[in-house]
Amino acid sequence: MAKQLIECVPNFSEGRRKDVIEAIVEPFKKQKGCYLFDYRADEDHNRLVVSLAGEPQPICDAVLEASRIAMQHIDMNTHQGAHPRIGAIDVIPFTPISNITMEECVELARKFGERYYNELKIPVYYYEEAALRPERTRLEVIRKGQYEALKEEVTNPERHPDVGEPKLHPTAGATVIGARKFLIAFNVNLNTTDVNIAKTIAKRVRASGGGFTAVKGIGLALEEKGLVQVSMNIVDYDKTAIYRVLEFIRMEAARWGVTINGTEVYGMIPAAALIQSAEYYLQIDDFDPSQVLELKLLELMREED
Amino acid sequence: MAKQLIECVPNFSEGRRKDVIEAIVEPFKKQKGCYLFDYRADEDHNRLVVSLAGEPQPICDAVLEASRIAMQHIDMNTHQGAHPRIGAIDVIPFTPISNITMEECVELARKFGERYYNELKIPVYYYEEAALRPERTRLEVIRKGQYEALKEEVTNPERHPDVGEPKLHPTAGATVIGARKFLIAFNVNLNTTDVNIAKTIAKRVRASGGGFTAVKGIGLALEEKGLVQVSMNIVDYDKTAIYRVLEFIRMEAARWGVTINGTEVYGMIPAAALIQSAEYYLQIDDFDPSQVLELKLLELMREED
Repeated sequence: MAKQLIECVPNFSEGRRKDVIEAIVEPFKKQKGCYLFDYRADEDHNRLVVSLAGEPQPICDAVLEASRIAMQHIDMNTHQGAHPRIGAIDVIPFTPISNITMEECVELARKFGERYYNELKIPVYYYEEAALRPERTRLEVIRKGQYEALKEEVTNPERHPDVGEPKLHPTAGATVIGARKFLIAFNVNLNTTDVNIAKTIAKRVRASGGGFTAVKGIGLALEEKGLVQVSMNIVDYDKTAIYRVLEFIRMEAARWGVTINGTEVYGMIPAAALIQSAEYYLQIDDFDPSQVLELKLLELMREED
Repeated sequence: MAKQLIECVPNFSEGRRKDVIEAIVEPFKKQKGCYLFDYRADEDHNRLVVSLAGEPQPICDAVLEASRIAMQHIDMNTHQGAHPRIGAIDVIPFTPISNITMEECVELARKFGERYYNELKIPVYYYEEAALRPERTRLEVIRKGQYEALKEEVTNPERHPDVGEPKLHPTAGATVIGARKFLIAFNVNLNTTDVNIAKTIAKRVRASGGGFTAVKGIGLALEEKGLVQVSMNIVDYDKTAIYRVLEFIRMEAARWGVTINGTEVYGMIPAAALIQSAEYYLQIDDFDPSQVLELKLLELMREED
């Protein structure tokens, strides 16, 4: 049976002390079956963002271990940084990649949340697809007022954690754990210097403007390139395939005689999202991802582990 | 450093005796670092085709071991089958997939050929990119008259093996070893029942008709579907990308007002060949294959081995 593959992007409230950052990522380097794609510390944000992929179990084990180390070094009472946060280990999202459903990822997040509280005594809020209260699907609702405000307001039933007593951990605060879809950053550059065209198209393509449900986007000018850009996040490529977004923008831009100069995929993209577009444009019938040599090889390598 | 990845598709002259077939593929299942994608035995052809991928060293080790087993069980003097062949182990092609050049695959094939002869005493002919004589790039030149004729003609300098004495192995015959590009089977179905349109387009798209250098193709009718098909092999997708072939056919078919119904990728395809087309249609600038989550994961998994 093909093994489950998830992505996990834990965010820690430490972006300045190199030794602490290295200590936190150490478990991700050591844990077999947990693959560390990338980690980026931002000094202004005072935040560390880690990208992991692999099977659920080793990822959960490594995240717990890294969290244990983070709580030893980070005191939220003295922490300062530009990025909103409520805890030393601020957010832990789990994302399904293959052979695992969103429902299973939600279950995973919730089981992990219980274990996390039991072992670390840091209270947990569930967000996005794992939210237990509808308003908590939105991270900003949970993080409102940040650590400083939540420390006081946590006793208010409206702000009780989903797991744990209604009080924050004295130094580590609280942690938001959840499950969410893979987010693709996709930008479309247009052959014009008129930023209003990009802004108008952004409005039309995004969910809030009546466009695609899974698209968030803004229009901006690329001064140096002499182009404008529709900069987007595709938050559910299963529902809203990249090629549909691109062809929609092409159609809208044609209204002003404007063409597409090029596009950018920023950061990671799951193979399925690219295959989806290749299948459409190449009109391939009955394509099976395991026809892709590297995906088949990955499957075989993961099976033998 | 990213590890080298090759494909290897050894062909053995046994497609009927199940126990022999299983004995031959056993080393491919056992050898660590050699991944068995598929093996298919054809009774009429009396031939076994095995698909492998992995690093060069474990693949060479496993192919040598499987060849040793094949030569113990197959006697070319009694072998019969519809497929042309000159030996118990008939052909061993090596194909570069990633982090390895064709030149390195040629070197690999020639080193393996020497080792193969030294250990098994089966003479070797080099073909395709590994050919030492220009006419031997073509497999059919080497296999002319098959085992039965070659057994006599091998003493003729024109037919001397590239490695070994000018005589065949008494039971195992000879083996053709070489390096070749990955071959993609790509079919385009047209919305018409007029097979002449498919035949005409096939002629125009293929190298022999003045079309793309890396395309071989024929036109045929798909009676049950009420369509016709341009059935192709793309023998070098680096030179001739799939999307160019498809758009060329679309353009030609438009001449008769005929449209494309769909396409088929038959068998395996390297990720690079799909990414190439996704990049073109989605107009993606500066795309790096390691942005694909699964390809990055494969890279990390292969590094830790």
